[in-house]
Amino acid sequence: MKKHYQMWEKLGLNLEKHDQFLEPLPGLYEDLFVSQENRPVAMEYYDFVVGDIHGIRVKELVEEKKKGNPVISSFCVFVPEELVAAAGGASIGLCAGSQFPVPTAERELPGSDLCPLIKSSLGFKMDKICPYFEVSDFVVGETTCDGKKKVWEILDKYIPTYVMELPQTKLKTARQLWESEINRLKEYIEENSGREIKAEKLAKAIKLINKKRDVLQRLYNTRKADPAPISGRDALLITQLAFFDDPARFIEKTSALCEELEIRVEAGEGISEKGAARILIAGTPMPLPSWKIHGLIEQNGGVVVCEETCTGTRYFEAKVPEGGKTLEEQIDNLAERGMNINCACFTPNEARVDDILRLAKEYNVDGVIYYNLQFCQTYNLEYKKISKALKGENIPVIQIESDFSDSDTGQLNTRIQAFLEMI
Amino acid sequence: MKKHYQMWEKLGLNLEKHDQFLEPLPGLYEDLFVSQENRPVAMEYYDFVVGDIHGIRVKELVEEKKKGNPVISSFCVFVPEELVAAAGGASIGLCAGSQFPVPTAERELPGSDLCPLIKSSLGFKMDKICPYFEVSDFVVGETTCDGKKKVWEILDKYIPTYVMELPQTKLKTARQLWESEINRLKEYIEENSGREIKAEKLAKAIKLINKKRDVLQRLYNTRKADPAPISGRDALLITQLAFFDDPARFIEKTSALCEELEIRVEAGEGISEKGAARILIAGTPMPLPSWKIHGLIEQNGGVVVCEETCTGTRYFEAKVPEGGKTLEEQIDNLAERGMNINCACFTPNEARVDDILRLAKEYNVDGVIYYNLQFCQTYNLEYKKISKALKGENIPVIQIESDFSDSDTGQLNTRIQAFLEMI
Repeated sequence: MKKHYQMWEKLGLNLEKHDQFLEPLPGLYEDLFVSQENRPVAMEYYDFVVGDIHGIRVKELVEEKKKGNPVISSFCVFVPEELVAAAGGASIGLCAGSQFPVPTAERELPGSDLCPLIKSSLGFKMDKICPYFEVSDFVVGETTCDGKKKVWEILDKYIPTYVMELPQTKLKTARQLWESEINRLKEYIEENSGREIKAEKLAKAIKLINKKRDVLQRLYNTRKADPAPISGRDALLITQLAFFDDPARFIEKTSALCEELEIRVEAGEGISEKGAARILIAGTPMPLPSWKIHGLIEQNGGVVVCEETCTGTRYFEAKVPEGGKTLEEQIDNLAERGMNINCACFTPNEARVDDILRLAKEYNVDGVIYYNLQFCQTYNLEYKKISKALKGENIPVIQIESDFSDSDTGQLNTRIQAFLEMI
Repeated sequence: MKKHYQMWEKLGLNLEKHDQFLEPLPGLYEDLFVSQENRPVAMEYYDFVVGDIHGIRVKELVEEKKKGNPVISSFCVFVPEELVAAAGGASIGLCAGSQFPVPTAERELPGSDLCPLIKSSLGFKMDKICPYFEVSDFVVGETTCDGKKKVWEILDKYIPTYVMELPQTKLKTARQLWESEINRLKEYIEENSGREIKAEKLAKAIKLINKKRDVLQRLYNTRKADPAPISGRDALLITQLAFFDDPARFIEKTSALCEELEIRVEAGEGISEKGAARILIAGTPMPLPSWKIHGLIEQNGGVVVCEETCTGTRYFEAKVPEGGKTLEEQIDNLAERGMNINCACFTPNEARVDDILRLAKEYNVDGVIYYNLQFCQTYNLEYKKISKALKGENIPVIQIESDFSDSDTGQLNTRIQAFLEMI
């Protein structure tokens, strides 16, 4: 892992803590990713990105800023990155998948009954160990859950945090609110960056980001094959990196990977044996570097073939309609995408059941692992309904509640092993 | 406690469970309320209501239904009961403050990381021990927190549950959504009841419910005196009963009580000694029959003089402007009230800090107990900010997290005792 102390210091990182944070990553990555047998060759790009995870991309962003381009961060699939791209800037999906900064965040938070993702997000900033935070002009939060909604108020003390109100239903009036929120963000970006977001640029940005979604769909399509040509952890990693890589480069590199994978599928070549237990993960996001569940499943002989999560299909399945010519039409289209994402933050959210049943069929899965970040009430409260629907289709399912620590690894290993044996 | 088995059976109550549920109430009520020395005489009305808590009012509601009047239930101060009154119906704030039905609710809920109020609400219906549920045409839920939002989906399997989307900010566009939600509820009530809600009736209903708020404010004003003329538990009980009593009768009876209290204040007569530690409770609601915290404070020599909760000032301080002549204006005014309530469900919610500091001053309190229902993330996440503001004004504060069970009574007693000694 390359060191860029000069840049990190300039960005205001806590160098000592940052070193401590990065220290275990190369070993973990080697064990979990690099050591896989028969891995697609094109994974070398992503290995390269991870190998310099706080270097090369950060350097690019520092350069962007020198040119006066905005760098704007977010944590959620609902934030329309198209607006940032249209302003000539870079949109970053921030890291929030590590236990490391959680104890620091807990100093600001009363009690511990809070989702680890939220604690991790706040902790990364408080600990000053995330160069992406430090290079950002501001953060765009959203009201997708009680915990995030209130923690943005705290985060705002550390970095300007702009909050979008995502409605909680899909009523026509709620959609109007969302549309007006997208427009408000547009104006905020314009004001902050001094860049006007023009219809022509926004049309291009919509096309570009849709292409990123297309290439992820193409990647996921290859996973429908048995044997799967790529491991679940590699696919997860790619989706995680999609949140902060340069979109055009990401599309190019992932297209190249897809070509290799499609050839493998054609040849019946897989990352695991044909017939390995095929798992769909449904539930809450797994932000970088949260790889625990995939690791446990695949080290026990299963293969994750799809993620119905915010770091999976919820990130790319819903696309922005491309027809819009005026800003008004385009913003209406951006709003449309949000309303087509079936997040548990909405009520009702019956379409999510359909999504999961459809994905289980499309990816020909043997079982579903319902992954729930601790204290995420909305996803937790949808489990019963979803497990009932899956059982109705004779698809085995278990729920796993976890955080980003290793404290439950042994217990999870036993449960996952038992589940894989059963199916 | 009077028995009305014939009516209860007709309503479909589980008579055996219902008996078990009611069984400890008279003893508890005797110990906590009736046994108080020097209690205002006019409390006898509320004693009478509690003594027949599942009888006389339920009978009235059954009669209302026979006349074709709607009976509509809710759980939250944001639901505009004026609309129900304008349709000639009765609005009921449902019970949700008992541990008794929680184990039943937990059968429908995954894990136990959920607010006891929400579990209790669902459990009352599942157990069939609440005649108010059984006499209701439908329930009006709202999106004030993740837990409630998703549990309405489950409750809807047991009783029709209509959900209002309360926005999460107070932006102009969010207020518009709330206004349209009030209008949507109006139409739903009209459709369901076959009653047209006319401007003239709604104007009267707005005045009536404002009068209920006024009388509660008048009651609270008497508590500003030292010694307080009424105990905190009695005042809490009155607010709890305000949610489901007939508004006109409640106003009459509570006005009579206020007259007595004002005379006591004039005479310097109190429920406790002058100089008893005066406590403001701030935080989450205490629905009927949740009296634990008040009991512990007052049995340890303190006196609760104000509640900054949904079963306190958040229920009555914000009033509906009365000028509206057209339905449009009136609905705009109903929306205005909601936007003036400083619930932790909003972001930002800085005005709640001001509210608490103001109440601490107005009620001349010696300390604040921040009461947090377990797993209520929004209120929990506001604690740090509020405690900091209070400490800045040299007002002592502790946070108490609890549920409706007695399992933590000993521990809470010790903490409350220590707090009262300290201040």
